[in-house]
Amino acid sequence: MTTAISRFPVPEINDLPEDMREKVLAVQEKAGFVPNVFLTLAHRPDEFRAFFAYHDALMLKTTGNLSKAEREMIVTATSAKNNCLYCVVAHGAILRIYAKNTLVADQVAVNHLKADITPRQSAMLDFAIKVCLDSQSVNETDYALLYSHGFDDEDIWDIAAITAFFGLSNRMANVISMRPNDEFFLMGRTPR
Amino acid sequence: MTTAISRFPVPEINDLPEDMREKVLAVQEKAGFVPNVFLTLAHRPDEFRAFFAYHDALMLKTTGNLSKAEREMIVTATSAKNNCLYCVVAHGAILRIYAKNTLVADQVAVNHLKADITPRQSAMLDFAIKVCLDSQSVNETDYALLYSHGFDDEDIWDIAAITAFFGLSNRMANVISMRPNDEFFLMGRTPR
Amino acid sequence: MTTAISRFPVPEINDLPEDMREKVLAVQEKAGFVPNVFLTLAHRPDEFRAFFAYHDALMLKTTGNLSKAEREMIVTATSAKNNCLYCVVAHGAILRIYAKNTLVADQVAVNHLKADITPRQSAMLDFAIKVCLDSQSVNETDYALLYSHGFDDEDIWDIAAITAFFGLSNRMANVISMRPNDEFFLMGRTPR
Amino acid sequence: MTTAISRFPVPEINDLPEDMREKVLAVQEKAGFVPNVFLTLAHRPDEFRAFFAYHDALMLKTTGNLSKAEREMIVTATSAKNNCLYCVVAHGAILRIYAKNTLVADQVAVNHLKADITPRQSAMLDFAIKVCLDSQSVNETDYALLYSHGFDDEDIWDIAAITAFFGLSNRMANVISMRPNDEFFLMGRTPR
Amino acid sequence: MTTAISRFPVPEINDLPEDMREKVLAVQEKAGFVPNVFLTLAHRPDEFRAFFAYHDALMLKTTGNLSKAEREMIVTATSAKNNCLYCVVAHGAILRIYAKNTLVADQVAVNHLKADITPRQSAMLDFAIKVCLDSQSVNETDYALLYSHGFDDEDIWDIAAITAFFGLSNRMANVISMRPNDEFFLMGRTPR
Amino acid sequence: MTTAISRFPVPEINDLPEDMREKVLAVQEKAGFVPNVFLTLAHRPDEFRAFFAYHDALMLKTTGNLSKAEREMIVTATSAKNNCLYCVVAHGAILRIYAKNTLVADQVAVNHLKADITPRQSAMLDFAIKVCLDSQSVNETDYALLYSHGFDDEDIWDIAAITAFFGLSNRMANVISMRPNDEFFLMGRTPR
Repeated sequence: MTTAISRFPVPEINDLPEDMREKVLAVQEKAGFVPNVFLTLAHRPDEFRAFFAYHDALMLKTTGNLSKAEREMIVTATSAKNNCLYCVVAHGAILRIYAKNTLVADQVAVNHLKADITPRQSAMLDFAIKVCLDSQSVNETDYALLYSHGFDDEDIWDIAAITAFFGLSNRMANVISMRPNDEFFLMGRTPR
Repeated sequence: MTTAISRFPVPEINDLPEDMREKVLAVQEKAGFVPNVFLTLAHRPDEFRAFFAYHDALMLKTTGNLSKAEREMIVTATSAKNNCLYCVVAHGAILRIYAKNTLVADQVAVNHLKADITPRQSAMLDFAIKVCLDSQSVNETDYALLYSHGFDDEDIWDIAAITAFFGLSNRMANVISMRPNDEFFLMGRTPR
Repeated sequence: MTTAISRFPVPEINDLPEDMREKVLAVQEKAGFVPNVFLTLAHRPDEFRAFFAYHDALMLKTTGNLSKAEREMIVTATSAKNNCLYCVVAHGAILRIYAKNTLVADQVAVNHLKADITPRQSAMLDFAIKVCLDSQSVNETDYALLYSHGFDDEDIWDIAAITAFFGLSNRMANVISMRPNDEFFLMGRTPR
Repeated sequence: MTTAISRFPVPEINDLPEDMREKVLAVQEKAGFVPNVFLTLAHRPDEFRAFFAYHDALMLKTTGNLSKAEREMIVTATSAKNNCLYCVVAHGAILRIYAKNTLVADQVAVNHLKADITPRQSAMLDFAIKVCLDSQSVNETDYALLYSHGFDDEDIWDIAAITAFFGLSNRMANVISMRPNDEFFLMGRTPR
Repeated sequence: MTTAISRFPVPEINDLPEDMREKVLAVQEKAGFVPNVFLTLAHRPDEFRAFFAYHDALMLKTTGNLSKAEREMIVTATSAKNNCLYCVVAHGAILRIYAKNTLVADQVAVNHLKADITPRQSAMLDFAIKVCLDSQSVNETDYALLYSHGFDDEDIWDIAAITAFFGLSNRMANVISMRPNDEFFLMGRTPR
Repeated sequence: MTTAISRFPVPEINDLPEDMREKVLAVQEKAGFVPNVFLTLAHRPDEFRAFFAYHDALMLKTTGNLSKAEREMIVTATSAKNNCLYCVVAHGAILRIYAKNTLVADQVAVNHLKADITPRQSAMLDFAIKVCLDSQSVNETDYALLYSHGFDDEDIWDIAAITAFFGLSNRMANVISMRPNDEFFLMGRTPR
């Protein structure tokens, strides 16, 4: 039993290279605390920079037909399949906030077939889970089904890329035992 | 998207047979609301009575070396393996309360290897998950390992029986789409 | 190699509480011997009572569209998936007798697609096996397919509940190494 | 529901080439009936001849430390993993006869960990099942464990080859729906 | 790290029984080297003879609608599922030669859905992989789909039998660590 | 059957943003051709930049105890588990060149237990495959085993990160049907 946030060394914020320190302080300003992933991955500055550049390209993207809540649904559902504690807890919290829904994160993490989501969102998660667990079998039938729900090719790229990127994140978090901040567990659980 | 608590008819409390009505009212008195499992399974009175008799024999038992929190850990961890939304959410809530720990339920549901639990509890959950997913392979090595953590044969029966009983519950909940009460999602999440 | 009927203590019939002793003697009277499950589970009287109350509610039920033989088919097929020696052998024997068919139990235990059963029974077993192995994925398509074979919602509850209940039984039998009575292996194998 | 013994054409015994007809008549003489595998595979004479040459090389072999009953245990246990009705039923019958044991075939087919066999036989079946399901992972640790039970390299080849050969047989039987003769179900079930 | 071609004794060509020596010398004459399978399996002459008789019945067959390249596709794709180094490398080489295609073997070994093959060939490999991994589930729907691509019952037997036979070969190669000849790795990789 | 290199639009090199064009031309200069991944991922410039920044941080790293060939072994072995044609073929080629070994890539892709690699490399691949397929179960036993082969914590991070990163790459390649350049299939197959 440990409350270390990583099995690996975690740098002090003040010891970070300037660009990374600024990024960390900015997220602290916005969230009120520093999500542990910003500290644990800072152990490897070049990987940190690439990780968050990739993350931001997918999650802060302002084009396409996936809402911010839907992107977080994908993260939460697929991270649960990879049994990644950090991502299920942290992104479940963000999902609750974006969706303004106190229940949906736990629903999607346990079984999206029982979640209060639309058939379009359920099809999106079916596909994300297939990319997560069995990407070798993706084929034109999957594309056609997603088209029938109004997704276009760029949306499908987004679903796949978010799933693939967080599959990377899930594996790193599992290997280094990345611990979610306590704050995430409660965040977004009371309606505002 | 639906908020029905079961795919099957749900009886009114006042229409229940007297013994069942008393049980339901007693739990309502204690919990402040009626957990949906008491209403959804009431569709079949004889099965309802057997279900709760079995449940109480295992979960209200006052002998043995499993704490109430540990029994709920078993339920939460194995229900997650069976992707049962009702049991993960409802018993996760009860686990938080019994363990007086706001984090442990989500930890155990996603990956017990990353949870703030003791090595003894981790061995207990390893075994429960084996009973849940691969009971055919249980053998003397499993018993020996549990003995080394201080569990005796009766404790091992308890771990197995709780796992087996909630495996029944998980399958019924999945088939009838039993919905957890909204109250459970927030319960026990703030320390008292 | 052992011929003990359980890894746990087995009470003497004469030491059982009166209600349990009566139940055991009644089954002995009817079957000509005491099936071991009545002795092995008697180690825990409250669980014994709940177990058989549940069992009887599902298996002695006189309403609905599942024949007694069909209920035993469900038990035999799903117990084989759980690799439960006791239930495959004991319920396979009962299946042979109810179905008046010396072959069907082994067929259903090994591969129900090759069994001498009706398409309706095959669909029933497809669903039972899904509930047994992957209940999280049960959805409206499964219900619709069963409706097309003449099953109604109550029948579907029966199929699921029998599967779920014997999943409990299978796990207990595997953990305690419950041994089937020798009598079961031969029972019903010669046409009458 | 059908009682055809194969999904493919089955030749008449009298239409078989002389060498095959002699082989079939010899087994009929010995067993009292013609096991269906001799008729169903006769659809392809060259494959029939190679199949039985291979079969006989492995199963009629008189050297090595595997008894005839042990070879049939391997067939029964691995055919159950491949869900092959023909082989489980036919070779289970032969196992009962060779082992002079009315129970062991069903035990080994459902879960060899619960069977009345020796630790040496259990290790043999562990290995056979690994070859059946996960041959890619076989390594020196497997060899060492088998040596510790008294098996030598030639015995290990035998275990692997019997498993591999009946894996072929299982797949053919499943694809052509080869039906076991009714006689096999009862054979060897009463002690003599 | 070893370059032995088998974990078991390998006979000298000159010590082989006459019929086997002739067969080995003939293949050496044709291929320019002796594929290791002819030496490693010669450790057991009777099994060797049956193995190659079966092999030739399936792979040298001149009737039916499967081309030689298609038969090798089946071997390559299913041997990859069984993680058999010898067969993937050796039969991949033969596939390149028969198909006069330098890319198709690696494509089919890794993911036939991304290979430069026809829809008919893709359906053939879907079925072969099902026979390889899940033969218990083969049913009339599989037959109907193959008919729709122009395969007849005899072709389906061929696909199944080739898959089943090389499943035997894969398991033996994995257990005895059969090493592919270096020559196979490069063979057929440059267009002629 | 198609020879498109991606299911998505592929930009012309001359239309790429300057930084990306320079990167692509540099790799073309060095390799003699443009590996398709540089073109297919260029469809999304920001993701492209993050992808290659991550790639270079892991694969061009000059510290630590993993050789370049060992890093490519990890990519090849885990990409095979994810059935990613592009990465198995392209990184198999690079592996052959770095290892100056014409056989090792195919060996590692099919079954690393049969490859001409050291026990240390085999342990490295065991761990990489666990991170690839079952990262939730990684624990201190895995670390201890790797330490015993001379790997330190930073090496373990490298193994995990390479596996995780190419897991992302594999999923994208599978979803967009990224086609390996023909050049890769033959590269490094003849000793120099």
